[in-house]
Formats: sequence, structure tokens, C-alpha cells
Amino acid sequence: MIITLKKGASDAQVENLKALLRTKNIEPRVWKGELETVIGCVGDIAHLDPGLIEALEVVEHVQRIQEPFKAANRKFHPDDSVIECGAGAKVGGGNFAVIAGPCSVEGEEQIVGVAKDVKAAGATMLRGGAFKPRTSPYAFQGMGAEGLRLLSLAKKETGLPIVTELMDFKDIELFNDVDVIQIGARNMQNFNLLREVGAYTKKPILLKRGMSATLQELLMSAEYIMASGNPNVILCERGIRTFETALRNTLDLGVVTVLHRLSHLPVVVDPSHATGHSWMVDSVAVAATAIGADGLIIEVHNDPPHAKCDGAQSQTPAMFAKTMDRVRAVRAVI
Amino acid sequence: MIITLKKGASDAQVENLKALLRTKNIEPRVWKGELETVIGCVGDIAHLDPGLIEALEVVEHVQRIQEPFKAANRKFHPDDSVIECGAGAKVGGGNFAVIAGPCSVEGEEQIVGVAKDVKAAGATMLRGGAFKPRTSPYAFQGMGAEGLRLLSLAKKETGLPIVTELMDFKDIELFNDVDVIQIGARNMQNFNLLREVGAYTKKPILLKRGMSATLQELLMSAEYIMASGNPNVILCERGIRTFETALRNTLDLGVVTVLHRLSHLPVVVDPSHATGHSWMVDSVAVAATAIGADGLIIEVHNDPPHAKCDGAQSQTPAMFAKTMDRVRAVRAVI
Amino acid sequence: MIITLKKGASDAQVENLKALLRTKNIEPRVWKGELETVIGCVGDIAHLDPGLIEALEVVEHVQRIQEPFKAANRKFHPDDSVIECGAGAKVGGGNFAVIAGPCSVEGEEQIVGVAKDVKAAGATMLRGGAFKPRTSPYAFQGMGAEGLRLLSLAKKETGLPIVTELMDFKDIELFNDVDVIQIGARNMQNFNLLREVGAYTKKPILLKRGMSATLQELLMSAEYIMASGNPNVILCERGIRTFETALRNTLDLGVVTVLHRLSHLPVVVDPSHATGHSWMVDSVAVAATAIGADGLIIEVHNDPPHAKCDGAQSQTPAMFAKTMDRVRAVRAVI
Amino acid sequence: MIITLKKGASDAQVENLKALLRTKNIEPRVWKGELETVIGCVGDIAHLDPGLIEALEVVEHVQRIQEPFKAANRKFHPDDSVIECGAGAKVGGGNFAVIAGPCSVEGEEQIVGVAKDVKAAGATMLRGGAFKPRTSPYAFQGMGAEGLRLLSLAKKETGLPIVTELMDFKDIELFNDVDVIQIGARNMQNFNLLREVGAYTKKPILLKRGMSATLQELLMSAEYIMASGNPNVILCERGIRTFETALRNTLDLGVVTVLHRLSHLPVVVDPSHATGHSWMVDSVAVAATAIGADGLIIEVHNDPPHAKCDGAQSQTPAMFAKTMDRVRAVRAVI
Repeated sequence: MIITLKKGASDAQVENLKALLRTKNIEPRVWKGELETVIGCVGDIAHLDPGLIEALEVVEHVQRIQEPFKAANRKFHPDDSVIECGAGAKVGGGNFAVIAGPCSVEGEEQIVGVAKDVKAAGATMLRGGAFKPRTSPYAFQGMGAEGLRLLSLAKKETGLPIVTELMDFKDIELFNDVDVIQIGARNMQNFNLLREVGAYTKKPILLKRGMSATLQELLMSAEYIMASGNPNVILCERGIRTFETALRNTLDLGVVTVLHRLSHLPVVVDPSHATGHSWMVDSVAVAATAIGADGLIIEVHNDPPHAKCDGAQSQTPAMFAKTMDRVRAVRAVI
Repeated sequence: MIITLKKGASDAQVENLKALLRTKNIEPRVWKGELETVIGCVGDIAHLDPGLIEALEVVEHVQRIQEPFKAANRKFHPDDSVIECGAGAKVGGGNFAVIAGPCSVEGEEQIVGVAKDVKAAGATMLRGGAFKPRTSPYAFQGMGAEGLRLLSLAKKETGLPIVTELMDFKDIELFNDVDVIQIGARNMQNFNLLREVGAYTKKPILLKRGMSATLQELLMSAEYIMASGNPNVILCERGIRTFETALRNTLDLGVVTVLHRLSHLPVVVDPSHATGHSWMVDSVAVAATAIGADGLIIEVHNDPPHAKCDGAQSQTPAMFAKTMDRVRAVRAVI
Repeated sequence: MIITLKKGASDAQVENLKALLRTKNIEPRVWKGELETVIGCVGDIAHLDPGLIEALEVVEHVQRIQEPFKAANRKFHPDDSVIECGAGAKVGGGNFAVIAGPCSVEGEEQIVGVAKDVKAAGATMLRGGAFKPRTSPYAFQGMGAEGLRLLSLAKKETGLPIVTELMDFKDIELFNDVDVIQIGARNMQNFNLLREVGAYTKKPILLKRGMSATLQELLMSAEYIMASGNPNVILCERGIRTFETALRNTLDLGVVTVLHRLSHLPVVVDPSHATGHSWMVDSVAVAATAIGADGLIIEVHNDPPHAKCDGAQSQTPAMFAKTMDRVRAVRAVI
Repeated sequence: MIITLKKGASDAQVENLKALLRTKNIEPRVWKGELETVIGCVGDIAHLDPGLIEALEVVEHVQRIQEPFKAANRKFHPDDSVIECGAGAKVGGGNFAVIAGPCSVEGEEQIVGVAKDVKAAGATMLRGGAFKPRTSPYAFQGMGAEGLRLLSLAKKETGLPIVTELMDFKDIELFNDVDVIQIGARNMQNFNLLREVGAYTKKPILLKRGMSATLQELLMSAEYIMASGNPNVILCERGIRTFETALRNTLDLGVVTVLHRLSHLPVVVDPSHATGHSWMVDSVAVAATAIGADGLIIEVHNDPPHAKCDGAQSQTPAMFAKTMDRVRAVRAVI
């Protein structure tokens, strides 16, 4: 951490600040320039709130140098994490996951049918929403507990591990048969929920990046889960919000490479939410594979025009099978 | 709702779509241009999900015309809502609220002292955080139930109604003495929480805009609360996330005027979070008053350099008193 | 400038970097932490390109501390600049400018009529576009030289100094009678144009912030003009581009306060472009006044529905007169 | 174009508007809903400025349906454009271009050496800046005419066509030996420059997307060039500006697919500017290839740590050769 002092800081003020830092087990180094005095802080500063220092009257600016995340930081864990997702499915460290299925579970025939289709095409896990966060209170909100029961049926039929979203910790006991718990983009900074799933379970948590979350905020949310006791976090890029309105979101594909440099956690990409259009999912899925993502999460529906949500971005099983062929071809050469 | 069909849509496809719309109690009007056929939808479309229509193969594009919010919509409720906040404090319809106090409650002396100071300067309500959403799991998370107890003490001493944040519905029974329940920016789309507070209480809900929430999303979140049974929603602009990093957030002050046009709900402005710097709070508070906001929510701390959070953006009681003088002067002339 | 080295930087690498910095008249100070070695640079670093340092293999990260602008920097020029705009009109240092007139000059009667109207209401300068930057090649592009001739006529009739946009330096000789030269948002980083107007004239330059320009970039563009020889720069905030689509742009009003802290140059606000709606101009103009802007630039048209451009955001003379009353009232109390 | 009228629009107002539209050769179709009256416009509306209609008092909202670009629109030109770039190099319609070379020309040995290296690795064109747009007036601004002379030398030695940026039309006569003229991101809306290069030459124009330009604005800028007489436009995605600061820009890779749908023009991707880090260029180049870009433009420098600009994002020739191997492998399978 680098602390820049205001022009005209007195020697007494500098000494006071040094004393304050030492009470926090931080060793300050001071040097004076023409216009500013600067103090460098050496030591374990992950627990020091920069805002506290910035609030001091003598301080002009505070700049962190070390990242504030530790458990998620590749500096302290150089090897890729490999997350076990059940039934032999893994993600990270060279293991590529393909999570496919409908936006929401709508009935037994639908979910079992789609599960068989995506398995045949090469999916390694089944997704399907039972609890759905919707912008409008008047929109379909998911089948709830019944949706989870139908997902279990589909798992029994196909052997595919289940990935589904938890919106509220009070529903956690319904998730016993769920293999990977998704935390949605809108809950990425629902810190209570992060702490609760981190403390309650060691099941993998698929953590989606919030619509305007920086990479550091995403990693700090992973840190909440990990610091609570669950190291099995899978990061997910699903598009961010920008000025561009041509697509539902702006896919920020470069983050895959940056996250791999900053963290040992696996990163999967969601081309369905990132684009909002089924005709774009294929090319984006292939590009995400090429850039080195550890997996994909793709919405597939047996009958998109009649889907209860997100039909516009859902592939049909036939489209998905073609995408899988191209994904495999690219995986083979990179 | 205006539906644009793809070039080359057949008559049969158009007839199918018209039939589908009629099953949803929507009356379609069709006309054909050189390149596109367009269908206009008349009727109650608030419950129709545009995504469903957009997913149809024949559809190029769907454009909403009517706003999807009803309870919050000024078209259906032309008069300003006036929200009663306890002890005679009101907001909206010409009633100006000044909510002031520390970011977090830190002790009895602190909260009671600040409460007296802000009351003396003209505040109409007391704010103070007991449960704090923090980006880092290693940062101070608030005093919890004990913080609420201290807020009650400060209320008893000063008569000021209390405004404080609820992060998790399981804590709601601790909020009996709270007058206005705040839903924070990070929980603006925690739809379960919105529904729960809407159904459980008629107490005013101060709903902060999410960091990248559009105005329509903010109003849809208000709609969640209102549709669940609680019409007493106060909207709060607190800055949005943009490319500009000179400030903590970008204050989007123009939204006050737009929200007043779209909705009958009161709008308060938070200059502390919008700017992140105590030296900016004064000018922004005055500007927010000038543009016609229904109130302000300002962080005031007895000793900002030693605040446990957000010290950098906290005014001292003396700064706050000066700001109040200027706010009153502007109120008098607009 | 603070240079963070990569983990494992060797002593020889550190010595090489120190030697390199000394060749650039920079005195390096080194200290070593547990994980990183950091080098602080003292001296005149405004001419040092941080990218050059960042490209070195041993470097992890470079952080500027001093601002890269000098001529525009308040640290070196503590007093407000007061810019003389002709005919006694001034801006900055307590002088408030009101620049009003149509988006584009459309005819003699129109521009002379509007000039008289805005003067009567209290405007101190006349604006009007002769060369218009338009997103579409098929839209009206302005009257060109004839427009400038008509502006001169209006100036002769009313005595108001003229403000108008220069898009191309080859037109500069047509601007002899122009008092303040506007550089539009889309040309804020047309560096050749900035250098040319800076070298050719000492007339005030009204520099509009680009749609996604940071404050530092705006000040660096002012620096181009000033370093070329013209110190008379007026900064203009006109809204930035964000995810929010409810308005034409997002007015970033807080920048007035920040720019005043960073720079001695005056800052005017354009509520017309910032909002895109005539019904919003009044409240935003009043808020900009309240926050401490040094002036306003407002589009006023005698007949907005038939304006050749930007009719939707143009006030009528009657609306403008009412806004001026409110602006004066707020000026009196702040 | 769909025009929504205000609630309470009178029959006379509707008739007036219909008459106005007919004077512009537009056939209006009216229908009335419960709350709004809507008018659909059929006919050639590319020349109609929506702002004019929106300014009318009776109008609530105007929504374009047809795109405002024509020459660049795939609807009117279904086949991909193939642009000839000299010496047999082509881009578009299945022809993949690799444009490589240093950010700026620094000397004969440097540019000829890099040209030979990138040719050997598979580049089809040589890039190199002679006129450089720099944020700071104190930074290196390029070698100018001498830089162009050195590019010609490198072209003679290698046979590679030259791509270089034109910042100011007054320099155009120096560009006789240049094969592809680049218009930089900061000049994407320098409409005079677009018109001038469009009218003066039929040489291919590489048009880079502005930092906050929407896809529609990018296509309208292409339209300026095309409407002036030059149909040979190559679009270039180079990253956009968002809230995320982990990278120099946010690469918006999905736009390749969207632009291909909207337009027949080729789209190349610039992974160097999009990321700002040489260690990221490889993975992003491969992803851009996988998504279907028509080419890449990559910064390659013989000695990045001593480059006069953008060293941090320049690949060495050895890195570039490895990237080319991976790009070819991906091209072979998609």
C-alpha cells in the first residue's frame, strides 16, 4: 500500500501516521519528493481497510499494491484448482465442463428429454432453473421445489450432475441432491448468502459475475465463500453491462485470461446470457473455448419459442450438438 | 408493444402470431412496409414477457411502448406519494427529508452524540448501519443486533425516526423499532428480500438504486415491494458505475427529474456514496436540492478519521450544519 | 510514480532499472517487501511515458502519483483563471457566463430574433452552429460560411459575443468575427486540431468533454491547447455515455467540483446535450448553477418543433427566460 | 419508424402530424390504444431525422425500426464484401488478413527488420504508425513524413502492403504509397475527415471503432465514407471503454458476429489495443479467429521494452510466430 500525503504535511503529522501504522503491524517507509511525501507500507495489509487511511486529513491518496484476496490468489496457490462436481465431472486444470439445459425446468418430459439430448451431444452436467430471479414481479418465477424434484429425476435417468441456482438460503435443504450450487449475478454481492453457503457445504459453488462487478469484486466474493470454509468455487463470466445495446450484455471474454493469471480457480463462460440471442451462442461458445475457458454453460431448450423464459437465447438440441462438434474441434488444436 | 417481423414472413406465419397474441388477450394490428411487416399490440401487456415473443422464429425485434411497471407508474397515480416515516417526518409531495448519521453505529456515545448534532442542524431522521455489506470478508461487518439497540436509544433521546439497512430477512424481528427499512444497492435485485419486506410490513422502504441498474429496473424493484402489499417506497439515487474513476461513483442527478416524471414515488439523493469524498458532499447536496430531490441521506460522523467505515466520505457535524444552511437557502428560492 | 517489480526480481535487474531511470533525470528510491520490491520515482516525471516502464520485463505495475498535466494544474496556478470573451463577457473566478442560442443557424430572422430574446432574458453570449457534426451523412450539416455571416449580423444587432464550433482548421479564417471557438465532444481528442487552434489564436476555446473521456483526458486535451500557446481554455461538461438509456447522456455534475479542485480553468455545463429533452433543461441548469459551475450553455430556438436539429432538447425563449429567473435566484444564495 | 403520441392527443393534432409526414413522402398508419395513439411510418425514412419528429409537442417517443445505414447494410447487399488491399492481399468473404508491425516506425533497421519477421511468420500486411495520436502533448508523436518513407522502404523489401494512420487530411499526398489508410478510434466521428477520404480515394479504409461508439455509430461512420464515394471500408473492433479497469479496454468480441449480420463489410480485431498487455494478445487473437473475424491487426516490435510507444502491448517476433501457428490451427477447424 502506497500512501501519498498532502502537500505541506508536517513532520509531526508524518510521525503520527507512522505510529498509527505500526499499531496495525505495518512497517512504514517514508520518502519525500518535491511536491509530495509518500509512505510505503510493508507487511500483511489484507486486513487493513484503505478507507480508514484515506479518511485521515493529512492523506491525499491511497493506492493498494497487493491484491486484497488471499484464498483465491494464484500467488499463494500456484497450481490450478480442480473442482470435483460429482459423477466424475471435473472442472479446472485441463478438465473442460459443459453445463447445458433449459433456463427453467418446466415439466418432467421437458427436463428429462433435454437432459438426454445434451448428454448425447457431450454435456458433462445438466443445468435447469427451479428458482428464477426475474426483473418483473409479474413474470414466471420458476417451479421451485417441484423443479428440483424433476431435476433429480433427470439426474437419475442420465447420470448427469445437476447445477441450479439458490436464491435464498432458507431453501438450502431442498438442494440435497444438487451437485453444484449456482449463485446468480444479482446475488454476487449478497454477502450473507455467500457466507452461508461457504459455511454450510463443501459442494462446488458456481459464482456468476455481477453485471457491473470488477474482477476484483468477483474474486472478493469468491473470497467470502472460501474464507467461510468452502474452497470449491467456480467463477463464471456472463457478460457485463456497458453502453452498447446491440446485445443483452457485453461479453468480456478477455477476463478469462486475466482471471487465470490472478487466481487458481476455474473460469466458465455463459454465452447464452452474454449475448441474449440463440444465433450468437455458437460463435461465442467456440471463441470462449479458444481463449482457454475451463467450461461453458449453455441454455438448451426443446422448444425455444414456447420456453417460459429466455427462449430468445436458448439453443435447440440440434444447434447445441453442432456447437459441441465445433467446441471439440477447437479444443483439439489449442 | 411493437413486433417487427423478419423480411419474408409468410401470411400463414403472420396469422399464427395474431392467433397466439389473441390467446393472451392482446389485440394485434398489422401493417406491411416495403421491407418489414410490423404488428402493434393493444391491451394490457404488463404481464406479457417480451422475451417470449422475441423467441419466435418469424420475429426480428420487439419494442415495448408501455412501461412494465404499474403500481409505481405516475400515469395511473398522477399525485405525488407522501410517505409517513414516523414522528411526523414525511417525504414526498413537497416534504423534504434529511436523513443523517454515521455509516455504522460504533457505540452509544457516538450514535447518541451524532444524533443530537444532526438534529440540531436540521436533520429529520437518523441513519446508522448495524448490518454492513462490505466488499471484503475481512472488513468490519457492523455491530448487528447491538447496533439496533443503540439506534433505539438514540431515537429515544432525540425523537428522530431511525433509518437502517436490512440485509437478510431472517433479522426482521430485530427491526421492530426501526422506522424506515433500507434495502441497499447490492440487494436491489434480491427479489426474495423485496417480496418479503413488501408482504411483512407497511413501514417505508428506502430502496437504493443498484450500481448498474437502469431506471426501469429500479422501478421494477419498487414494483416487487408494492405488488407484495407495501406501497410505501422511497427511491434513492446514490451514484452509478461508469468508466470515470475520479469519484467513487458517477452521480446521476438528472434521474431525479426523470423519476418524478415516470413515477409518483419520492426520490432522495445520497451525496456521500455518490462521491466518496467528504469535501464533495456539500456541493452535491446543494445541487440535489436544487434539482428538486425530495430529500438527502448524508453520512455524518463525529470523528471521520477514526470511523470504522467510509470515513473518507463522512462529514463532521460542523460541515453538516453548514451544508444544511445552504440547503435551506436553496430550498427557499426554488 | 511508483513502480512495482515482479516477484523474484534480481538485484541486477533492480540496478539496471535504477540506472535507466537516472538517465531520465529521475531519482529512484527502492524498498523491498515480503512479496514485491517497489521503486518510487522523485523528480519531474510529466515527460516520462509510464508505458515505457511498464513494458520492461521485470515490472509488474506502474502507478502515477503526480498528474500528467501542468499548465492546466491548480497546484501550479492556485488562482482561478478568468477568461475574457469579448464585449466585457467573462467566465471564471466568480464570473458567470450564460451562452444561449439555437443548435444551428437557420436564417437571418431566426438567429437575430433568438439573439435578441436570449439577451433580453440575461444571456451573456450567443451560441449557434454553422458547421454541424452529425452522426448521419444524410442529416442537415449546417449552413457553413453563410451561417457565420448571419451570426456576425446577430452580434452587430445585440452586442453579444459569438460562440460557435470549428470542426476543421481549414475553416479558421472564416472565424475572424467569432469570439469563442468551440471544439466539440467528438473532436476532443483530434490532437492536430487542438494544437492548431492553440498555436494560431489566443481567443478562448470552449472544449467539450468527449462522450467517454475521463477527467484526466479532458485536462490533457486542454494541455494540448495550452502547451501550444493559448492559455484561454473553458472546459465544458455535456454528459457522458453510460449504460443508462433513459436520457441522451448521463450528466456527470460532480465533475464541476472535481475539475475546480484539479484545475484553475472555468467549467461550464451544457444541460441541453446532457439530457436531450427540453423539459429537463430547466432543473438541470439550476442544479449546475447550485453546484458551482462557472456558466451554462443552453440551446434556445424560436420554434423547436421545426428546428433543423436537436429540436427535442431546445427551450423556447419563454422557457429560457423562466430558467434564467431561477438561475439568478440560486446564484444569489449560494 | 413508430411514433407514440402523448395521452390526450387530439384528432386535429393527429391529422396535422399525418399531413407533415406526407410532405416528407412517408405514409402514416394510425391506431389507437387505451392509453396511447401510435403512428407507424412506411416508406424511405433513412433521410428523416427522428429528432425532428420527437420535438413535436404531441409526440411522446419515436422508435426507429429500419436501420439508418444503407450502403453498409447487408439487407441491400447480401454478399460479403471482399476488399483488395494491394499485392494480392484481400480481406472479407473468407479471406483472412493478418496486419502486423510496430506501434510506431522508429528507424529503417527497425521497420524493415520487423517487416521481414512478420512476413516470415505469415502476416499479409505491414502496419506501422508515422503520425501518432497521443493523449499527452509531451509524448512522442511519431516520425511523420520520414516514417512514411521508411514504410515504403519496408514495402519494397518485403512486398507487404502498408497500413498506416491518417490523422489529418492535409497529409494525404504523403500517403501515395500507402495501401490501406487507417482512421483511428479518436477520429471515428471526425466527419470531415471521413468525407474527405471517401471522396478522394478508393483505397481501403480501416475504420477503428471509437472508444464508446455503438455499432450503429460505427456503421454510420462507414456510411459517411461510402456515401462519399469509397465502398472499400474495413471495420475494426479494438475494445471499448467500460467500468472494468483490469485491462486497457474491454474487448467486445461478440460484435464480430453482430456486425456480420448487420453489414457486408469485413471486420478485423485488434487484440493489442483491446488488452494493453502483450501476454494477453495470443489468447485474444486465437479467440477472435475462432469467432469468425476476417483478420487481425497486431502490434509486433523487435524490442518492446525500448519501444517509443505501446511497448507493454507489443509482441516480439517470436511471440507473434507462435500466435500465428495457433491462429492457423484454429482457422483450419472452424
